[in-house]
Amino acid sequence: MARVSQEHLDARRRQILDGAARCFARNGFHATSMQDVLREADLSAGAVYRYFRGKEELIEAIVNEVLDTVRTAFEEAAAKSPPPPPDVLVGQVMTQVLTERTGLSYEGEEGFPRLMVQVWTETLRNERLSAVMRTGYARVRQAWIGVVEAYQEAGLMRRDIPAEHVARTMVAAAQGFAVQQALFGAAPVSVLQDGLRGLMSMTSPMDSPSSS
Amino acid sequence: MARVSQEHLDARRRQILDGAARCFARNGFHATSMQDVLREADLSAGAVYRYFRGKEELIEAIVNEVLDTVRTAFEEAAAKSPPPPPDVLVGQVMTQVLTERTGLSYEGEEGFPRLMVQVWTETLRNERLSAVMRTGYARVRQAWIGVVEAYQEAGLMRRDIPAEHVARTMVAAAQGFAVQQALFGAAPVSVLQDGLRGLMSMTSPMDSPSSS
Repeated sequence: MARVSQEHLDARRRQILDGAARCFARNGFHATSMQDVLREADLSAGAVYRYFRGKEELIEAIVNEVLDTVRTAFEEAAAKSPPPPPDVLVGQVMTQVLTERTGLSYEGEEGFPRLMVQVWTETLRNERLSAVMRTGYARVRQAWIGVVEAYQEAGLMRRDIPAEHVARTMVAAAQGFAVQQALFGAAPVSVLQDGLRGLMSMTSPMDSPSSS
Repeated sequence: MARVSQEHLDARRRQILDGAARCFARNGFHATSMQDVLREADLSAGAVYRYFRGKEELIEAIVNEVLDTVRTAFEEAAAKSPPPPPDVLVGQVMTQVLTERTGLSYEGEEGFPRLMVQVWTETLRNERLSAVMRTGYARVRQAWIGVVEAYQEAGLMRRDIPAEHVARTMVAAAQGFAVQQALFGAAPVSVLQDGLRGLMSMTSPMDSPSSS
């Protein structure tokens, strides 16, 4: 067997993952066959099965890759003192994810959000994927908690609110924005950034009651 | 045929919709058959088909009902001057939706968020449902825009930010919070409320540049 460079192996792996992601984004996990993936990636079965044994391994690899990108971006931001404000940070990270994974897109920018929604549904009934998501999400949330704590230490945010709750809310805003993109079409990240700036501009007395 | 009261008809319709919602939340739309719905609602085929011709009509009715509840709650809030702040408002509406639709829940509080995620995935490939979602979502967003404009008119929020962008962001935070509940288990709405309060407490100079 001819020796192949690591670069070639990486490029081939990239080609497979991007093809699979486009299939999953378009038709969902269950309606996608390995044949569809082979066709989309324009590769033979032998070439693909050398890297991934099946759809489960493909979706787990895709999810891990995306969550790693997001986590790394937030960890880098948290290392700055103080970190960029939420509106700037969310813009940076979402743009970075979408830019790095352009191979994912199909029919314009909705591809990636569509993939996210499909992955969530698959996660509801796939225990292995659920475990992957829990671990990956916990890391992203932890990175966000670091950012929030840095805000609080710099006196930029109320310190009496659990950092984890703010972290969950920031992640929620990004997830929900992706839902809207998947369902109703692409919108620039600046829409979400504007919305966060609007919230941040609200009058919120430090001593406001925590009424519900 | 015996005459039946409107009350009886309404209760029967409720029983069917709640049974269908539990099925969809548990197994998704495609993996649910009308037989499953009949069993879950404990009714005969004749009793169910008198109200709904099939799964499509069931899911559309469920979606319309939920979106109506959300929209009405926001419209009522927008009518107040000024409306309750975002953290209070989100708490009120989410609690109201979850309380009114307890019939939906299965295995605790995750039932409703699970249903939402399943509906989104179905929306990606069902044009009729997509149209129902677009219309319903536009109404909810419009109600939120009314709330945001009231904040701005009361001097509680920067007026140079499009109200629609803030509305989309608030809806996104609620949607993303539901995603997390579906994937990682129930959490009290107060987590999201805390997070919004944290954001609202951030220092955001009125003249901050709209950098990304």
